[in-house]
Amino acid sequence: MTAKDTLEAAITAQGDVVRKLKSAATKDKAKINEEVQKLLALKEQLKQLSVEDAEPATEGATAAAAAVAATPGNRNLSLKTAKGTRDYGPEAMALRLRVLDQVVSVFRKHGAETIDTPVFELKEVLTGKYGEDSKLIYDLKDQGGEILALRYDLTVPFARYVGMGNVFNIKRYHIAKVYRRDNPQITRGRYREFYQCDFDIAGTYDPMLPDAECVKVVCEILTTVGVGPFVVKLNHRKLLDGMFEACGVPADKFRTACSSVDKLDKTPWEEVRREMIEEKGLAEATVDRIGEYVTLHGGPELVDRLAADEQLSRIPSALEGLADMRLLLEYCAIFRVADRVSFDLSLARGLDYYTGVIYEAVLLGDSKPDGDEITVGSVAGGGRYDNLVGMFNPKRKQVPCVGVSIGVERLFSILEARTTGKTRTNETEVYVASAHKGLHLKRLEILNQLWEAGVKAEHSYKLNPKLLAQLQHCEEYQIPYAIILGDGELARGVVKLREIATRKEEEVALDTFIDELRRRLSVSATV
Amino acid sequence: MTAKDTLEAAITAQGDVVRKLKSAATKDKAKINEEVQKLLALKEQLKQLSVEDAEPATEGATAAAAAVAATPGNRNLSLKTAKGTRDYGPEAMALRLRVLDQVVSVFRKHGAETIDTPVFELKEVLTGKYGEDSKLIYDLKDQGGEILALRYDLTVPFARYVGMGNVFNIKRYHIAKVYRRDNPQITRGRYREFYQCDFDIAGTYDPMLPDAECVKVVCEILTTVGVGPFVVKLNHRKLLDGMFEACGVPADKFRTACSSVDKLDKTPWEEVRREMIEEKGLAEATVDRIGEYVTLHGGPELVDRLAADEQLSRIPSALEGLADMRLLLEYCAIFRVADRVSFDLSLARGLDYYTGVIYEAVLLGDSKPDGDEITVGSVAGGGRYDNLVGMFNPKRKQVPCVGVSIGVERLFSILEARTTGKTRTNETEVYVASAHKGLHLKRLEILNQLWEAGVKAEHSYKLNPKLLAQLQHCEEYQIPYAIILGDGELARGVVKLREIATRKEEEVALDTFIDELRRRLSVSATV
Repeated sequence: MTAKDTLEAAITAQGDVVRKLKSAATKDKAKINEEVQKLLALKEQLKQLSVEDAEPATEGATAAAAAVAATPGNRNLSLKTAKGTRDYGPEAMALRLRVLDQVVSVFRKHGAETIDTPVFELKEVLTGKYGEDSKLIYDLKDQGGEILALRYDLTVPFARYVGMGNVFNIKRYHIAKVYRRDNPQITRGRYREFYQCDFDIAGTYDPMLPDAECVKVVCEILTTVGVGPFVVKLNHRKLLDGMFEACGVPADKFRTACSSVDKLDKTPWEEVRREMIEEKGLAEATVDRIGEYVTLHGGPELVDRLAADEQLSRIPSALEGLADMRLLLEYCAIFRVADRVSFDLSLARGLDYYTGVIYEAVLLGDSKPDGDEITVGSVAGGGRYDNLVGMFNPKRKQVPCVGVSIGVERLFSILEARTTGKTRTNETEVYVASAHKGLHLKRLEILNQLWEAGVKAEHSYKLNPKLLAQLQHCEEYQIPYAIILGDGELARGVVKLREIATRKEEEVALDTFIDELRRRLSVSATV
Repeated sequence: MTAKDTLEAAITAQGDVVRKLKSAATKDKAKINEEVQKLLALKEQLKQLSVEDAEPATEGATAAAAAVAATPGNRNLSLKTAKGTRDYGPEAMALRLRVLDQVVSVFRKHGAETIDTPVFELKEVLTGKYGEDSKLIYDLKDQGGEILALRYDLTVPFARYVGMGNVFNIKRYHIAKVYRRDNPQITRGRYREFYQCDFDIAGTYDPMLPDAECVKVVCEILTTVGVGPFVVKLNHRKLLDGMFEACGVPADKFRTACSSVDKLDKTPWEEVRREMIEEKGLAEATVDRIGEYVTLHGGPELVDRLAADEQLSRIPSALEGLADMRLLLEYCAIFRVADRVSFDLSLARGLDYYTGVIYEAVLLGDSKPDGDEITVGSVAGGGRYDNLVGMFNPKRKQVPCVGVSIGVERLFSILEARTTGKTRTNETEVYVASAHKGLHLKRLEILNQLWEAGVKAEHSYKLNPKLLAQLQHCEEYQIPYAIILGDGELARGVVKLREIATRKEEEVALDTFIDELRRRLSVSATV
């Protein structure tokens, strides 16, 4: 199936979703809008795909094509967000804020502070940090000043912060958007602008104590957010290098061999094998020996087995990696996450800057026919990077770091797909309604009393709204109570207090209605 | 005083701050770092200033100069953030999050939802919205795709969201960073990357009901955040236009006259007068008539006076503006903010898109010798813009909007300057310490129990840290309790629970220490 086919199928499916929503008896406008947005994004992606097929290879020519595409003389604005980006409406944001809150509480439970860095960096700060992916960096136009680029991740800016500021130890989290000119895959929730949620520990400490805490943090977050069963794969860059050395890979090909192994989560071994031999020029015998190692995964018993391995045990870096792994698995057992982790020799991770332990958390999906568990994708990843901060320190002083990045966008997608019904998007506790015309000044007065008392309150911005419309608004926005004003009641010094869900109404005195409302709100808050 | 003088003075002053901190008996490293960052930013600004003085006028030549400045052969990275931007360390972030939390609770008290839009937009979305300030927009490099630019504010993206999504009513807040290639004035807290905090109400409603709520929101926020006395100046674009018409300004010069009047908060009338006559080519008599109006400010009595004004009362748009102002002041009185607002004919606001009421909140500073109150700067501003959304709607359908933007960066600066002592940057409740060597496994076990129980807990990442160092860490980070492990106590099934502030220690049983700790934490939380 080509990308075009996939997209067309997705558009058809999404079209059905929208039609269904639109034809439903009770129209949920927010939801419809949300789904229409997704449909438009898919259509835009298809359009882009056709444009790209037709695009000439050079940048200059592309710009010319783009200028033509803008149809000179047509003064209509393109009604879209930039390619690979989207708006997040109130419902999407409510879900995102809820998940981010959960993630932050875990970070805070582990004593983390937070910092923030600018969205763009001097281009040279980013240069040479991301290997082949550097081409995905968004550059800013040279408008006669510094050469700038949008951040590609939060790790390099963090290393710059630590190095530049002469910080020698910090445990921080950073939640912010990063930018990659990747091929957006909106069907899979992959965008060019997306959140990263990073937790890192910088400082010179004893082996594996901060590293084990990062694993614990990942396990706590995935459990708290509730995305189902998962496993945190663990490996070690020194062990990988030792393994390559033991198999006969020349030292200058460690990193490229690593990036082939990194594909094993999505690509079958046969294909990776072919790439290593044909594209990377490794000997068949070498590659087949690698093949034997990378199928191995397990726990402390695998550490013992590898430490006893004739080839590996001769390679110092392999032994260092194994010593770390043994300690890490011991600490994981104390943190009661032994059943959540798997020492996995196929885990490699793409980035160049890792120097020690590497992690990757994957969700466990359905079983394949052969009974093996298959994974539905990575939801967190990280590792140790001891040599990055020094690049940014005036005296080249290193500060060892270890950290993990939570793939919140994937968590958002999973939770969004599971959500049934409408997510509440406001926190309004009471709606002040008029039973008939001519009450807007009284409404404002009551509203003001509520606000001054700290109660979350709203009303219609129309002078004389219909009562039914006001109550429907409460139902649509899931506002729990309404105060209904009427001349008859006001003359008697009372207002009606209506519980929206049950439609029960009761008269309460004007001078005690706030206390009464507060009492009810606190009762329902503790239910 | 030139910009250079100001900067040099600021650098000297900031240098003193840093020296003082460094020589203090108890070194607060985080604070020192924070202040060193500021010093470096100032020095960088001074450097930029000299570079700019020397910069040739054309972009190409500037790029060449920049390339030379990068000193070929020198492989050292520039250790800095981009011009006009800065990192925010844990202390700055703790303050920012606290203030933003307060702002959000007011928005939520008024029933607002939140949305998010991408950090960049298609350039054409931003074109023609900001008048002369358009030159301050950051463009992205053309990397062979769409022509993009960083957002300049949150209002235009909001209008695009509403128009494009066929949203017909929404009350939303949006807190995000915006980007302006302005001359950064770090001494005055003005950066090129800064937060905006917007609250807007879109929908077709009755006059002044949403507008008055925006004024109320501003008053609540400034009161909650606690930045001292303030006044919200109010005016109306239709009244301004009517006033210009009455004074004899030709219709095509309304906007340019408006932007001259807008300078009155910083510039004396004589200078604005000169600009209007000499640069904008208005007749002297016209300008002097304007001069009489723009000194007026007051309350409802001023509305009456202007409605009776012979010239103004002949101009329909002036009367429309006055009718709105009368209603707005009436609603403000019901919302009990009459003493916080001032109908002020000198308020104009720079942006082109306003069509009705405009606001600006200013803090009131010390008195000038003549007894008049002077203002220390604008901390919120906004207004009604009824014709912006239509530009982004496929069918050109308008959705009237009114909103306000809180100048949180200025609030941060004011509160930061007032902060004495160290701001807490983490939420750790208990630190697990070892009294002597060999206890790290037990520490991990206790830590894990605390985490599983939801207690915020930390320890040293060293195997055998010194007890004194561990307790000092608690004091430095203001962690309220420590659990101290020792072989003697553990053998008896107890641990020491130490209250950091009082240094009081007590033995608690290993099987109840979490309950005991929780009890103490909840007591101190309610104090």
